[in-house]
Amino acid sequence: MISRLMKRIQETGAPVCVGLDPQLSFIPARILKKAFGEKGENPEGAALALWLFNRAIVDSTFDLIPAVKPQIAMYEQFGIPGLTVYKQTIDYCRSKGLLVIGDAKRGDIGSTSGAYANAHIGQVKIGSVSSDVFRADMVTVNPYLGTDGVKPFVDACNAYDRGIFVLVKTSNPSSGEFQDRLVDGKPLYEHVADKVVEWGRESMDGEWSNVGAVVGATYPETGKRLRELMPHTFFLVPGYGAQGATAKDLAGCFDKDGRGAIVNSSRGIIAAYKKAEYAEYGEDNFAEASRRALQDMIADLNKGKAES
Amino acid sequence: MISRLMKRIQETGAPVCVGLDPQLSFIPARILKKAFGEKGENPEGAALALWLFNRAIVDSTFDLIPAVKPQIAMYEQFGIPGLTVYKQTIDYCRSKGLLVIGDAKRGDIGSTSGAYANAHIGQVKIGSVSSDVFRADMVTVNPYLGTDGVKPFVDACNAYDRGIFVLVKTSNPSSGEFQDRLVDGKPLYEHVADKVVEWGRESMDGEWSNVGAVVGATYPETGKRLRELMPHTFFLVPGYGAQGATAKDLAGCFDKDGRGAIVNSSRGIIAAYKKAEYAEYGEDNFAEASRRALQDMIADLNKGKAES
Repeated sequence: MISRLMKRIQETGAPVCVGLDPQLSFIPARILKKAFGEKGENPEGAALALWLFNRAIVDSTFDLIPAVKPQIAMYEQFGIPGLTVYKQTIDYCRSKGLLVIGDAKRGDIGSTSGAYANAHIGQVKIGSVSSDVFRADMVTVNPYLGTDGVKPFVDACNAYDRGIFVLVKTSNPSSGEFQDRLVDGKPLYEHVADKVVEWGRESMDGEWSNVGAVVGATYPETGKRLRELMPHTFFLVPGYGAQGATAKDLAGCFDKDGRGAIVNSSRGIIAAYKKAEYAEYGEDNFAEASRRALQDMIADLNKGKAES
Repeated sequence: MISRLMKRIQETGAPVCVGLDPQLSFIPARILKKAFGEKGENPEGAALALWLFNRAIVDSTFDLIPAVKPQIAMYEQFGIPGLTVYKQTIDYCRSKGLLVIGDAKRGDIGSTSGAYANAHIGQVKIGSVSSDVFRADMVTVNPYLGTDGVKPFVDACNAYDRGIFVLVKTSNPSSGEFQDRLVDGKPLYEHVADKVVEWGRESMDGEWSNVGAVVGATYPETGKRLRELMPHTFFLVPGYGAQGATAKDLAGCFDKDGRGAIVNSSRGIIAAYKKAEYAEYGEDNFAEASRRALQDMIADLNKGKAES
């Protein structure tokens, strides 16, 4: 899987994925009106609004990027109709040639992680028939339970040619509370990184592993250090834009050949029309504003990589 | 919320919840035949089988216990039909007077955790209307992202009178890889415990907090130590039975008055008919076997508490 992602990054020149994390407050009034008018002010109406919004964003951006990263929580909060649109969004993105990173951060004890792996990147066997479930290409995984909670995801990578990104150092303000604590003289996230490298050896795809790492762009020195410690581990890098990180901050996540990371932006792209610099597009042209913001982000990242 | 759980434990004399974690391999052939006959060997058929199985188990056990703990992964692996049965199971259990602990182990950055909290123990606001979503009473939470990932769940506890159980020390074999690592001379899980106590102060319900902890029964000394460190924190204790822990192992999770913990058993109860000691019930009487196994478990735990 990781070689496919890297090939698509090379083809598009964009080490970028768009975070399809719609909030109702991002969605233009006319879409909400249409959706609520059809389905009511209820989870079905909200889910329809998410779908109409996502489709427009994807239609306006799919040719520029290799991948998208829908955050399942934004759909899960609308229950069954929301999760139906999560699945519909994955299918639609894949039909447009995009790779899909399901941001689910699942993780549990072994047999339970196996069920999550089936759900998100594998298949489930029912009687004599195997079925796809959410059918993402890659999924994010929480490592707090250790190897037996992660291994079923690695097995699914191998069985189905998929990928995972394990949380190593997250982008949020309080990520350091546990992740930065010193264990034997080095931060916990470096111990997690060691394990990610170990797990990754069991699912190599050329020079790089299908077992990647989430490394927040908001901690630049950490990204650089982890790049050294994990030379064959691909990074999913959140935190650019709305969370405050710049292209310079995350330059260290790439290797000397400019490879090894994909940078996510969610609200900075999908709600671009709400930012002063893209306000000229107006609510009616929100998807065009997203395209413009995405082009600017790609240029900014490539400039940041060239300068570093 | 926690006072309601404790009251129900006292009324039933059973500090026990049944883990509604159905696997197809637990479900008697006649139920599978009926479900696959109606819906096919597909996620819809699997979901129907889960539902018929769950309903029989609940009907046979609800009067003995205060709560159930459905593991969402077992439903999520069957996609939308599976998650529909997750919701249906929650609603059915609540209609029988049971409290429901959704075992979802969610956790993400702040705004995203807010969406998960809404989904599982809160409500989601759509236009001018607030709706329940999965509507569990309590939910399990992963702490790896720190305070900003947990706080939205605590807020939901306060807004909706609900509860959470934060993973402190899990029951699985590799839980020690990160959780046991020494930070400033004490294991990481004790640092997590300190934070759980701190978060818990923001949602007290009498003497005890709505912010509880998951403490695996498979590590007896740890349970005892955490009970000392967390005198006002209620424990959800997995690992009894199929995972190997005995009543004696988990006695330390209770306080001197025999309060402070609820013990989960999943396959030991719901697949009891597959164990030699309950084989006499046969597949046709699987739900009666579950009731018998549950009665034996309650007696065993109360004996373990009395002896400790």
